[in-house]
Amino acid sequence: MPTTVVALRETVPGERRVALTPEVAKKLKARGADIVIEPGMGQGAYFADAAYAGCEAAADARSALARADVLLRVQPPSLEEIATLKEGAVVIAHLQPHLAPERTKALRDRRITAFAMELLPRTTRAQAMDVLSSQAAVAGYKAVLIAAEAAPKFFPMLTTAAGTIRPSKVLVVGAGVAGLQAIATARRLGAQVEGFDVRPETKEQIESLGAKFLDLGVSAAGSGGYARELTAEEREQQQRALAEQLKAFDVVVTTAAVPGRKAPRIISAAMVAGMKAGAVIVDIAAETGGNVEGTEAGRTVVSANGVSIIGTTNLPASAPVHASEMYARNLYNFLELSLKDGALTLDWNDELIAKTCLTHAGEIRHEATKALVGDS
Amino acid sequence: MPTTVVALRETVPGERRVALTPEVAKKLKARGADIVIEPGMGQGAYFADAAYAGCEAAADARSALARADVLLRVQPPSLEEIATLKEGAVVIAHLQPHLAPERTKALRDRRITAFAMELLPRTTRAQAMDVLSSQAAVAGYKAVLIAAEAAPKFFPMLTTAAGTIRPSKVLVVGAGVAGLQAIATARRLGAQVEGFDVRPETKEQIESLGAKFLDLGVSAAGSGGYARELTAEEREQQQRALAEQLKAFDVVVTTAAVPGRKAPRIISAAMVAGMKAGAVIVDIAAETGGNVEGTEAGRTVVSANGVSIIGTTNLPASAPVHASEMYARNLYNFLELSLKDGALTLDWNDELIAKTCLTHAGEIRHEATKALVGDS
Repeated sequence: MPTTVVALRETVPGERRVALTPEVAKKLKARGADIVIEPGMGQGAYFADAAYAGCEAAADARSALARADVLLRVQPPSLEEIATLKEGAVVIAHLQPHLAPERTKALRDRRITAFAMELLPRTTRAQAMDVLSSQAAVAGYKAVLIAAEAAPKFFPMLTTAAGTIRPSKVLVVGAGVAGLQAIATARRLGAQVEGFDVRPETKEQIESLGAKFLDLGVSAAGSGGYARELTAEEREQQQRALAEQLKAFDVVVTTAAVPGRKAPRIISAAMVAGMKAGAVIVDIAAETGGNVEGTEAGRTVVSANGVSIIGTTNLPASAPVHASEMYARNLYNFLELSLKDGALTLDWNDELIAKTCLTHAGEIRHEATKALVGDS
Repeated sequence: MPTTVVALRETVPGERRVALTPEVAKKLKARGADIVIEPGMGQGAYFADAAYAGCEAAADARSALARADVLLRVQPPSLEEIATLKEGAVVIAHLQPHLAPERTKALRDRRITAFAMELLPRTTRAQAMDVLSSQAAVAGYKAVLIAAEAAPKFFPMLTTAAGTIRPSKVLVVGAGVAGLQAIATARRLGAQVEGFDVRPETKEQIESLGAKFLDLGVSAAGSGGYARELTAEEREQQQRALAEQLKAFDVVVTTAAVPGRKAPRIISAAMVAGMKAGAVIVDIAAETGGNVEGTEAGRTVVSANGVSIIGTTNLPASAPVHASEMYARNLYNFLELSLKDGALTLDWNDELIAKTCLTHAGEIRHEATKALVGDS
């Protein structure tokens, strides 16, 4: 029997992405799946219903949900949606298990097979499914555009009849996918760019993009591609050096995040107070507490000395066409592991399946979340 | 006796530029001028009062004005300011003579020697004084940043583990200074760019920036570097071809302007209706009526088919540091023609002085404005 894959309109305010694009719908159909879409679901990303050729447009989202073998979502499903799903249904989405234990419990109790794309192992084979990476690239790009638009200076050098305008100095903090994309974008715009990361192995990547590596003399190489936490002494040394360096920058983009944790505080209010009037900071990590003291998610805060701190939220949703295209392809590549001739078979020996699974058959499969939720 | 050069805080809402920067104040002082500034005038562009070393900070702007031999301004002086100036004082600013006959009359009646920088002949020697060019460069740059931020797609091509994202297609209408800067900026960001101008001689400039020249089969080569008006038939041919081409673009930036005239209407509502959902148009000419039907200055209008038309206003003020630096240098280079050992001597045989002059010794010197104002 063919697998019924359902995609619904996202309901979180400001979420313009969609988990299923016409391109991916076509590919899933070619693999034998039946597709049900909610009319208008692609509106925020300008995908018309008519573009989803051969897909069923559900008259009623609730009844579509009740028939779903697989539900694709950008944001986590609501508790009501979880209750509507049939037992054993598969959910593939961002599930933010560290933020909402009650959602994890509902998924468990409803015996949903829930894949939290944030938990995907970051191996080579998983790259084509890695939603954190694809969406971070969008965030890094947009953050620099926001910074360039807000900045009172030009990014590029400009040689005019009335003399030369010097390029802006841009610092990107954190050289993960978002940071590297931010560096690349600021370089494209002609700024003089430096990149900073506590992981010394990022030096080469930063330099390969034509930026300078800002060496503060502290290394925090960790495991799994993320930084370890610094000691108090190391932090102090790093902070003193950073405070000194920050005085020279026109624009700072902060991108340091550790999935499932509060964002590390990297720039203090005192450092901001030492920066130039008119400098602009864009803090991509604002939603998880921010890399900058004083950041407010969704707002621009101007410090007493005239530094604007822009706390962005959900940047990928601000480039919904391409962010959705990449997200949907990521989900397709993940789902493809389990789709054989239209039927769904989960191979629990595949670490990508096993480790990405949050709940299955009435159990929480992710240890950290299990500890968080407890036995309640 | 040294010339007293006065610069005041701009009072037009949203105007963050300033006509005198610390750099230029220093140069004017070195040439023997006395400088009086209004405290806080550089605030919008982040120039602190203390940076204007050796300049007098006027306790009272009105009395400073009454002492001015030369008043430097970004926006035109108010009628009250004109009344406060002493007879024979020199004003150097944007004066927009076509918009405000009563201001020109006031300048004439007060026997002010007013230089309208918009009237500067666009000769090679004048380039270093050309405020229209320097500020248009800022506008073209910022317009593309606004477009890129508003667009639901990436500008650059992106090669990711989940496949390739194609670059956005950007059309820049009008290849003057603003248009060429817009093309350069969109190219920097990695978009696939085409440029369109009715003057065929712009083809080479557009192509030299790595963009394609959009040939609609109509030429409107005119004099003085501006386009002539098209015949009705030519316009129709141009419009049919443009309507067809526009369907392919993700972003359009319109920059067509003829100084002292209403902006030419280039893109009709019907053309907008034929464009892609999610396409973004930034209309730099919105303040003078717009190149796009439906544009509203200072607003974003979304068409029924999902095209956003962003009507920008005073874009140079949104990059106030560098826009002020260039503007102030332009004014310095113009004023320098007349400054000898701190004293002001106007050489009326110099065409830059003679042709830029709007009013002098109780007369309107600019013929078109004289005809507009009449003998009243």
